[in-house]
Amino acid sequence: MKIDDVEIDDTYAEAFPVKMGRVVVTAATGRWALIAATEATGLGTSLIGCPAEAGIDSIIPASETPDGRPGISIIICKSKSEGIKEQLIERIGECILTAPTTAVFNGLESDEKVPVKLHFFGDGMEYRTQVGGREVYAIPIMGGEFICEEEYGVVSGVAGGNFFIMASDQLSALTAAEVAVDAISMIDGVITPFPGGIVSSGSKVGSNRYSKFMKATTNEKYCPTIKEKVEGTQVPPDVGGMYELVINGLDEGRVKTAMKMGISAAVKVPGVVKISAGNYGGNLGKYKLNLHDIMK
Amino acid sequence: MKIDDVEIDDTYAEAFPVKMGRVVVTAATGRWALIAATEATGLGTSLIGCPAEAGIDSIIPASETPDGRPGISIIICKSKSEGIKEQLIERIGECILTAPTTAVFNGLESDEKVPVKLHFFGDGMEYRTQVGGREVYAIPIMGGEFICEEEYGVVSGVAGGNFFIMASDQLSALTAAEVAVDAISMIDGVITPFPGGIVSSGSKVGSNRYSKFMKATTNEKYCPTIKEKVEGTQVPPDVGGMYELVINGLDEGRVKTAMKMGISAAVKVPGVVKISAGNYGGNLGKYKLNLHDIMK
Amino acid sequence: MKIDDVEIDDTYAEAFPVKMGRVVVTAATGRWALIAATEATGLGTSLIGCPAEAGIDSIIPASETPDGRPGISIIICKSKSEGIKEQLIERIGECILTAPTTAVFNGLESDEKVPVKLHFFGDGMEYRTQVGGREVYAIPIMGGEFICEEEYGVVSGVAGGNFFIMASDQLSALTAAEVAVDAISMIDGVITPFPGGIVSSGSKVGSNRYSKFMKATTNEKYCPTIKEKVEGTQVPPDVGGMYELVINGLDEGRVKTAMKMGISAAVKVPGVVKISAGNYGGNLGKYKLNLHDIMK
Amino acid sequence: MKIDDVEIDDTYAEAFPVKMGRVVVTAATGRWALIAATEATGLGTSLIGCPAEAGIDSIIPASETPDGRPGISIIICKSKSEGIKEQLIERIGECILTAPTTAVFNGLESDEKVPVKLHFFGDGMEYRTQVGGREVYAIPIMGGEFICEEEYGVVSGVAGGNFFIMASDQLSALTAAEVAVDAISMIDGVITPFPGGIVSSGSKVGSNRYSKFMKATTNEKYCPTIKEKVEGTQVPPDVGGMYELVINGLDEGRVKTAMKMGISAAVKVPGVVKISAGNYGGNLGKYKLNLHDIMK
Repeated sequence: MKIDDVEIDDTYAEAFPVKMGRVVVTAATGRWALIAATEATGLGTSLIGCPAEAGIDSIIPASETPDGRPGISIIICKSKSEGIKEQLIERIGECILTAPTTAVFNGLESDEKVPVKLHFFGDGMEYRTQVGGREVYAIPIMGGEFICEEEYGVVSGVAGGNFFIMASDQLSALTAAEVAVDAISMIDGVITPFPGGIVSSGSKVGSNRYSKFMKATTNEKYCPTIKEKVEGTQVPPDVGGMYELVINGLDEGRVKTAMKMGISAAVKVPGVVKISAGNYGGNLGKYKLNLHDIMK
Repeated sequence: MKIDDVEIDDTYAEAFPVKMGRVVVTAATGRWALIAATEATGLGTSLIGCPAEAGIDSIIPASETPDGRPGISIIICKSKSEGIKEQLIERIGECILTAPTTAVFNGLESDEKVPVKLHFFGDGMEYRTQVGGREVYAIPIMGGEFICEEEYGVVSGVAGGNFFIMASDQLSALTAAEVAVDAISMIDGVITPFPGGIVSSGSKVGSNRYSKFMKATTNEKYCPTIKEKVEGTQVPPDVGGMYELVINGLDEGRVKTAMKMGISAAVKVPGVVKISAGNYGGNLGKYKLNLHDIMK
Repeated sequence: MKIDDVEIDDTYAEAFPVKMGRVVVTAATGRWALIAATEATGLGTSLIGCPAEAGIDSIIPASETPDGRPGISIIICKSKSEGIKEQLIERIGECILTAPTTAVFNGLESDEKVPVKLHFFGDGMEYRTQVGGREVYAIPIMGGEFICEEEYGVVSGVAGGNFFIMASDQLSALTAAEVAVDAISMIDGVITPFPGGIVSSGSKVGSNRYSKFMKATTNEKYCPTIKEKVEGTQVPPDVGGMYELVINGLDEGRVKTAMKMGISAAVKVPGVVKISAGNYGGNLGKYKLNLHDIMK
Repeated sequence: MKIDDVEIDDTYAEAFPVKMGRVVVTAATGRWALIAATEATGLGTSLIGCPAEAGIDSIIPASETPDGRPGISIIICKSKSEGIKEQLIERIGECILTAPTTAVFNGLESDEKVPVKLHFFGDGMEYRTQVGGREVYAIPIMGGEFICEEEYGVVSGVAGGNFFIMASDQLSALTAAEVAVDAISMIDGVITPFPGGIVSSGSKVGSNRYSKFMKATTNEKYCPTIKEKVEGTQVPPDVGGMYELVINGLDEGRVKTAMKMGISAAVKVPGVVKISAGNYGGNLGKYKLNLHDIMK
């Protein structure tokens, strides 16, 4: 399959179920909401080594937030609901409660909910009230009052949607990756948790050389600089640079849409020669997101 | 003491020794270095609830980095050196190694060093080389080669330098805080680890009401919205909004300079009426950073 | 009329017909499109002293642009169609053709069209081709090929929609203005041409003191710092800061929607006490945009 | 000559004397100063088609500005001093006076000065005062008071310093150009007036084909996409993308320093193969800025 002269590999991304929570952060201005959301989703690229996978979902106009202020939604991912609860407490408590002018609201309708008891910080000076029809606490702080909802919906989402962008050189691949991230950022309910939305260092499970202590190591079959030395390399001869995008979304449909929008934008960038995707032979993940199905 | 008609309180900030490491992140452009540095210093406001205190230190011009590329230095703080090692591995490994086009170098001359073994990710395909006169590893990854130094200096720095900005209203206080953070950002070797550099929710140790399970709660004496109700409130009658800046630096002199530059910028903002600082009566911290000494 | 305890003045904004053109700028990334669009819409606040009124309209996703790349639309306003033609040639030729990786397309369906002959820059090396179903020229340049459409629709739009935000202090008024600009930025087909979308120095026609050589001077009735001295001041006693937003849009409906969204966001900001609007007694402008009608 | 395996062409940039003024813009925050400075320097790439050449010079810390607020300096270039006066009136009056919270100060010590009478806007309500030891006017406006100096130094500076970055592909050349602009931005007293600091469409004087009405057309000898067709092409066989940087500075030394810093940063980017420069055979410009001299 070819789109705009770029080969779309006949393969699939293998993705996994994961628990997700979503928080709507509002603030006095959109800029302050973004600052808080950025801090709260940092150190959140991969569950292999980070406390959570986390990222910015969407900009929410003032007209659509519970308190009528500019908002941003963020998504937090953990393997279990208990982990979502613990991460929401930490990330809201340390990074949003502490940020100027913010408020937080639940961003997910769901039967499953976790309690996120933030009001104890008020030390008895807090009080219950309503904002935009929601039950919230108002906690007195230096900056005024911190408004927070305390029940957050949890859903079983899809983590690890992905595709590879292979180009003639590193900077063409990087530009294509940036364009793909921008395109995906416009879709509600998905995040690209890696830095700037892009993975530079794809990994394989385990290690050939350091298997005693390394759970994940570089995936040498996808390393352009050593393609001549690696048997079974997956880097085509004309490829000098590649990046991966990893996408987590609230459901399979959104992840597929994100992959489609991202790939469609990436193939327009000069120098891109091939799009592929990562999987583990299909034995590990519940979801097989086939590139040809998605792009047809 | 008054500066530009703003009262400088006769008090001091109480600060503490803490271990610090500094990493120079370089990338293809300054923008990509910033993206990696931002992810790597996220979830890093306070050791009370975060894995580390972390922040962006300085922009380093291409002409001054080991590899001649644009750079940014970040500072990571932990109570012990072992924690610095563990946090460097996690934050570099998950947030900078994974970010496009990055490299990392030690940013601190010091007798004490911690090893940060990143090269095992190369799974035997990595090799030793030199960049800018430094011993580094080159690890093959999707994006090309990741260059990293593996020994990082650790120093005993100063955490918890701080001051309060009190203004007639919330948004004047916030503008003053933003201006102060900008002024401090130009000083080498200091970070303001909270979101946007600003603390909105100052806390006291322990709790009056929920002491069984809360280690820190709102400092009700510094809450403008409840000043009428709180006995011993420290919020002056004409103050309607306040924010705190917390500053960590490589040594006491830099923290003092940062406080001076920040306060000098803040007092220029219309609406600011008083500058104060936070302490614990002087029994907990090694450093007493007196506002009148600093500003004279 | 009150919204969220903020008084909405019983008055109207007086607006005028003006000619408008719209250009879709695409580039390798959204960031480069923004850089070009910003340069091309600079020096474009008011027809009183600038060559045109100009501003950024909307972000256009890659999936919706003629060439499948990230885009931004900009709007240029002049009193006559001939002026639109001249300004498009200048602003595209000097600020977009010269910017890296850009292309330009007509952004307005309209019976009236102006020719914008850019292809002569190709000095005979240019050629006709098609992109996204549109007839374009491809001009060889250093950066590759510049793709441009050469017929641009012109419509009779509405300029000078406006409202005033009055607050207890300057920085609350400014925050409200920023929030209002953000809200308006999400509406297709409108611009706020002043710096950051905000007017700090409202003017009246003519001058009391320097009438021989000044066509416009400060509107002293809307100056908070001299309200005690000015007879007939329109600044309420409790107002210490105010800003104006000026909105130009492709039609009256869009300008009204923009005013509604902007005011709705502004009134949520603490410290805002009153919203008003500017007019000339109704004798000069074709459009009377009544605040109570708009906000009901 | 080779630096980091990149060929430095044995040629020179030909540059010209031009009149320059410099304005220090301060504001409540650095961000608002930047917004005003960006609007005021827009539509300012080239004197061939713009009212002026204009750009952002340096960020000025609050501790170094006349009013103790965050600042940005901008430089305006015209062929004659009278033009500087006229452009300062227009760009300050329309784009900075109208921007929230700004003030303006002269940014150049010089014997030659031009008067920039802004105070008439105050319509008699303005008054003289002093700020930071400078004689200024305070003009009442909606946003408070606009503080402005009215005498601006003018110097004879150097315009048209330049170099070309040639790379294997467009996006490598663009990344190198971006890095070079960042490096140059740290030098006081220079601007790169084109969009994002980069020229995508280098031009020659006159036209081969449309000489009757075109004063400048594409420089076909520097167009990678037609290099096979153009006799005497200056694009090497292995070059697929190139960009130019144009640098204006207060004196020859600064322009040379800027060229050196920019080139030094650019050659570190993978894919860059050659650096050259543009001249007119040496008959037009007063300054010949030789690449080998500059880089040795």
